[in-house]
Amino acid sequence: MNPFTRHHSQSVSADGEEKLLHSIRRWLGRATPGTPFGIGDDCAVLPASPGRQLITVDPVIYQRHFDNRVPPRAVGAKLLKRNLSDLAAMGGRPVAAVVALTLDGRVSRRWLEEFYRGLGACARHYRVAIVGGDVAQADGIVAASLTLLGAATGPRIATRTGAQVGDAIYVTGELGGSLATGHHYRFQPRLREGAWLARRQDVRAMMDVSDGLAKDLHALTPRGAEPALFPDALPLRRGATLRQALTDGEDYELLFAFSGAADPGRFCRDWARAFRRTPLTRIGTFAPRGQSPAGTLRLRDFQGYEHLR
Amino acid sequence: MNPFTRHHSQSVSADGEEKLLHSIRRWLGRATPGTPFGIGDDCAVLPASPGRQLITVDPVIYQRHFDNRVPPRAVGAKLLKRNLSDLAAMGGRPVAAVVALTLDGRVSRRWLEEFYRGLGACARHYRVAIVGGDVAQADGIVAASLTLLGAATGPRIATRTGAQVGDAIYVTGELGGSLATGHHYRFQPRLREGAWLARRQDVRAMMDVSDGLAKDLHALTPRGAEPALFPDALPLRRGATLRQALTDGEDYELLFAFSGAADPGRFCRDWARAFRRTPLTRIGTFAPRGQSPAGTLRLRDFQGYEHLR
Repeated sequence: MNPFTRHHSQSVSADGEEKLLHSIRRWLGRATPGTPFGIGDDCAVLPASPGRQLITVDPVIYQRHFDNRVPPRAVGAKLLKRNLSDLAAMGGRPVAAVVALTLDGRVSRRWLEEFYRGLGACARHYRVAIVGGDVAQADGIVAASLTLLGAATGPRIATRTGAQVGDAIYVTGELGGSLATGHHYRFQPRLREGAWLARRQDVRAMMDVSDGLAKDLHALTPRGAEPALFPDALPLRRGATLRQALTDGEDYELLFAFSGAADPGRFCRDWARAFRRTPLTRIGTFAPRGQSPAGTLRLRDFQGYEHLR
Repeated sequence: MNPFTRHHSQSVSADGEEKLLHSIRRWLGRATPGTPFGIGDDCAVLPASPGRQLITVDPVIYQRHFDNRVPPRAVGAKLLKRNLSDLAAMGGRPVAAVVALTLDGRVSRRWLEEFYRGLGACARHYRVAIVGGDVAQADGIVAASLTLLGAATGPRIATRTGAQVGDAIYVTGELGGSLATGHHYRFQPRLREGAWLARRQDVRAMMDVSDGLAKDLHALTPRGAEPALFPDALPLRRGATLRQALTDGEDYELLFAFSGAADPGRFCRDWARAFRRTPLTRIGTFAPRGQSPAGTLRLRDFQGYEHLR
């Protein structure tokens, strides 16, 4: 669905800001609490947080993260799910979110309603309170940025730092072909899996794969090491080539380092019991730099999604 | 300064994302803490919060909130200060912020450096930690949205709700002509004043004036009342007309209802002792609807800044 309308009477600018804010609250429904804990004051009020908190921000931008082929409800859900995937990568659970919307006055009311209804349904599903936001106008733009606040689910917050030479590299789900298959908006953020993995000390470092494995894996690689990937092991999404699995981006899967000293057999049995429907694949190891075994992939031959290129 | 450059070698896209993120961290300097408490992981980690928290989000968009006449350092500072003004209106103090940047690849590295250095200096001044962010590319856009997390400074959080018929209406500072005088980026958010006012029970409701008094005042007006403003009392910024003071917007001043049963003389003396340099003006009262005294302004004759019109 095209976000723009040619008919002024069907555009958001025909309503004006006040009516629009009123509509947004209605479209979000129970996903937004009453003031001062929801939309409507200078700030929203959040309860105290007894433990450490997590915060992340990610946008969806027209012609970049979605186009006319993506249903507006799915765009709203994608906005939240992109951020939930970041939270999953640290082992967190979501609490509350604020949304900054920037849009052209010619965007149709109907598109925006569907967008917010999709966001609201997704927020209720994942128990996220949409507590506030902002609406600004700018010509030619349809974009929204969501800031997500979360909490740790256990004593440990998983980070990208901590992998060691000899650790095994694992990834959840499948890689590649995200755009062609619609995975880029249909994916489910790995919140349960992330929380489970963060509780295990043998999971040394974790992140989500969103710009393509070839690019993202650098952030997990410890000093003096290089990732040695088994080309046949990569879990390809249907129709995806090896190159696509390495470079496509928008996989929203969890990538982690598993201690080389721990028992992988037991780990995989535990995983299979906990997550029957989420594939888990050992895709390689962190080898000492320059000592990757023959037959492993050289990541420098591939490039993930580079923003600003 | 124009954010765009015609020379590819001087643009942000010449650097690419990774180098840019590295530069942003350097430009922010001490305003951003080390990982996992700052930029660089999937989420940033925030400490526990023993009391209730406040959250708000506001953007700056090229050709809307700034143009080539505004120095990029001032744009960065304005982004934070707009949000600080919202926090001040609830009596809060800032804690941490995340920034979502959306920009055209042809934006110059130099403009962006100045923007982040301005943001960083402002963040250090107000003791805000810039803990995370996102950079996304979109053609023709230079925009940034900042989400600010704060905490209450005392037992009470001031809201827009609570004014009563008979309450006096006060405003800090001066109104109107914000664009012409540069006040729209030079203003100082009223954080100390907001915290002081929120502690007083006789201050019944508070907000910040950002879309023009004539529009914003509606949100403070209790049911069954109407604001009766004394036209001669409005504190005009130099060069501003009465209409401009009512409708210009971007004043970033505090507007509040003071209990009609409390002692205004004592209140004003207390204020003058606490804030020598911040003017405070009683601009009217909340009259019963339809019973405004003769000579007071009819707000429906004026309109503040309407987004999406």
